[in-house]
Amino acid sequence: MADPGGAPDGAAKSDHGGGTLPVAVDAMGGDRAPEEIVAGTLQAADAGLPVVLVGDPARLGDTGSVPVVEASEVIEMDEDPARAVRTKKDSSLVRAAEAVRDARAAAMVSAGNTGAAMASALFRMGRIAGVARPAIATAIPVPGSTPTVLLDSGANVECSAAWLVQFAQMGAAFARQRFGIAAPRVGLLSIGEEAVKGNPLVKEVYGLLEAGHGGPAVTFIGNVEGRDVMSDRVDVVVTDGFTGNVVLKTLEGAMKTVFDAVLGAFTATEETKAASKIMVPALMPIVAELDPDTHGGAMLLGVDGVCVISHGSSSARAIFNAIGVAHHAVSEGLVDQLRAAVGATAGAAAGAARYG
Amino acid sequence: MADPGGAPDGAAKSDHGGGTLPVAVDAMGGDRAPEEIVAGTLQAADAGLPVVLVGDPARLGDTGSVPVVEASEVIEMDEDPARAVRTKKDSSLVRAAEAVRDARAAAMVSAGNTGAAMASALFRMGRIAGVARPAIATAIPVPGSTPTVLLDSGANVECSAAWLVQFAQMGAAFARQRFGIAAPRVGLLSIGEEAVKGNPLVKEVYGLLEAGHGGPAVTFIGNVEGRDVMSDRVDVVVTDGFTGNVVLKTLEGAMKTVFDAVLGAFTATEETKAASKIMVPALMPIVAELDPDTHGGAMLLGVDGVCVISHGSSSARAIFNAIGVAHHAVSEGLVDQLRAAVGATAGAAAGAARYG
Repeated sequence: MADPGGAPDGAAKSDHGGGTLPVAVDAMGGDRAPEEIVAGTLQAADAGLPVVLVGDPARLGDTGSVPVVEASEVIEMDEDPARAVRTKKDSSLVRAAEAVRDARAAAMVSAGNTGAAMASALFRMGRIAGVARPAIATAIPVPGSTPTVLLDSGANVECSAAWLVQFAQMGAAFARQRFGIAAPRVGLLSIGEEAVKGNPLVKEVYGLLEAGHGGPAVTFIGNVEGRDVMSDRVDVVVTDGFTGNVVLKTLEGAMKTVFDAVLGAFTATEETKAASKIMVPALMPIVAELDPDTHGGAMLLGVDGVCVISHGSSSARAIFNAIGVAHHAVSEGLVDQLRAAVGATAGAAAGAARYG
Repeated sequence: MADPGGAPDGAAKSDHGGGTLPVAVDAMGGDRAPEEIVAGTLQAADAGLPVVLVGDPARLGDTGSVPVVEASEVIEMDEDPARAVRTKKDSSLVRAAEAVRDARAAAMVSAGNTGAAMASALFRMGRIAGVARPAIATAIPVPGSTPTVLLDSGANVECSAAWLVQFAQMGAAFARQRFGIAAPRVGLLSIGEEAVKGNPLVKEVYGLLEAGHGGPAVTFIGNVEGRDVMSDRVDVVVTDGFTGNVVLKTLEGAMKTVFDAVLGAFTATEETKAASKIMVPALMPIVAELDPDTHGGAMLLGVDGVCVISHGSSSARAIFNAIGVAHHAVSEGLVDQLRAAVGATAGAAAGAARYG
C-alpha cells in the first residue's frame, strides 16, 4: 500500500485509537466519483483509519463496513460554488462539512468542485477567530527533500497585504505540522530577490514580514522566484491565489510535458525499448514522488476544522492518501496550531490590516 | 552547428546579402561575458551573418574579422537599470542601442542586465508609434510543436487592460513572423477557462479581446491556464509582466528539477548506467528542444528596432542562436509588422485605453 502522504500511521497509532472520529469523505465529488472515491475510502478503512462516506447509498456500490451518511444531492464540478452550496443543502459536500461542524466527523475530504468545497467548509465550519480569509495550501513535491507548501493556490484571487501575512503564518504552522519542519523558511513569491522587486502588493508584504509582523512562527527569508518553488531553498511560498493557481497549473503542465517527452524517447527505437525495461522501473520512484496523488491533496487553512481538497481527477490512491493527511492533521491538532500562529500576533496583524 | 532559432539562413540568404547591416552584440553583458559572447558572435560571422561586437577591445580577446564598436563602460547584472543607462553613456549596452538608432546596426543582442537592455532600447530607439509599453516575448518550447510565445514575461510589473490588448496584438504579429503561424491562437492567462474566472484585470481584458479590440491580427481563444503554456493548445499567451515572469521561472525550475531527477535515476545502479548509454543519446533531442539556449532569447516588442534579450547565463550557442533570431526578425520586417498590428486598431486601442 502506498504512503498516505507521509503520515501513514498517524491516526491509526494515535491515542484516539478506535474512538477517533471518522474522516467524512465526499463520495460524489470528483471526475472519477463515486467508484475511485469509495475504493480509496475502503482502503483507508482496511488500513485502520476511521472513515465515513457521504453520498447517495444507491449509487455507492458495496461500501463494506464503512458507514454512509446519506445525502441526496450532488454539486457538479462546473457549478457556481456559492449558489450550489446555498441551494443544494442535501449535497454530499455540504453534509460532509456539517458532519465536521457537528462533531460527527473529525475532518472532511473532497475531490469535488474546489470552490464549493471551500464554500461548504467556510459556511458550515466557520473561520478560525482572527483569520481574515482561508487559503489553500498545496504541497509541491521536491525530489529528495520535503515538499514546498504553496499558498494561496487558488482560494483568493485578490488579496490584501494583511491576508498574505496571515498566509505566511498559517503556511508555516502547516509545514511544521505536516512535514515536521521545526522552523519553516517562508519566502514571498516575486520576480527578483531584492526587496524592491515585485508589484506593490509584494513590496508591501515584504515590508511587513521583514518587520516581524508574521510573528515568531515565521522565519522570513525574503523574496523567492518561480524556480525556487520546486527546490529545497524554501519551505513555504506565499503568494496571492491568482499567481499561486497559475504556478500550480504551470508546474503540472511542465511535468506532464517533460515526462511525456521522456517516455516518447523511450519508445523511439528497438534499442531504447529494450533499455526502457531497466529504466522505467528506476524512474518509477521519481514519477511517484512527483505525482500529486502521492501528497494527498491540498489543505484549506483558516476554517475551523480540517478540510482536505483533493484534485478533481483523484484516484483511489489519492483519496487514500488524502484521508491519511486529514487524520494526521487532526491527531496533531493542526487547527489549534493555526489558531496559535495567527493569534500570537493578533496585535501585529491588526497593525498590518491598516496597510491592507 | 546548431539551429539558430529556426532562422539559420534567414539573413545570409536574404536579398540584403553582404550589404546587410550587422547585428550589434553587447560583448560585455551576461554571466559568461565576454568569452562566450565573443565565441557565439564569431560562430555567427563564420555562418555568414553580419555582426559587430560592442565593448572594450582590450577585454575581448581575438575577435577575428568581426568589427568592434568601442565602449569603455560595463553595466553590471545587478545595477539599477534606469540609473545605469543614464550614467553609463559609454556602456556596451547603450552603445549597441545607439548603433541601431543611428542605422549602423540592424538589431541588438544582449545577455546582460535585462532591465538595462530594455531601458537602453527604449531610451535610444524609442517606441513604435501607438505602443503604450514594450513587452518581453519569450518562446516557450513545446515538444513536437512550435513554441508558445509568452508575453509580457517581465517588462511591466503592473499593467492596464489596454496594454494587455496591445501585448495580444504584438504577440500575434511576433508568432506569425517568428514561427510562421498564419493565424496564431491568442489566449489570456487565467485560473479557469470561463470568462468569469480571473482577477479584475484579466476579466476586463477578456471583455476587450472578446469584443474584437485586438483587431484582425488576434484570434482570441479565451482564457488559458498554466498547464496550457507548454502545450499545443495555444500559440500566444498574454499576461502581465509579474505573472509572466513567475511562470517563466517556474517552468525553468520544474524542467531542471525533473531532468536532474531523471538523470539521477540513470546513475542509480550498474544496470541503469549501462542502459543510460542508449537512453541519453535518445533524450538529447528533447533536452536540446527544451533548452532555452535553443530558442535564441526573448524579443523586446514595441521598441522601434529589433532587440533580442538573451538570458544571463547564455552560452556561445545561445548567442549564436540569438543573432540568427535577430537577423530573421530584421529580414522579415518584424517592426513594420508590429506597427501594422498595433496601428490597424488604433481606434480600438484608444477606446480600450479608456478602460486602462
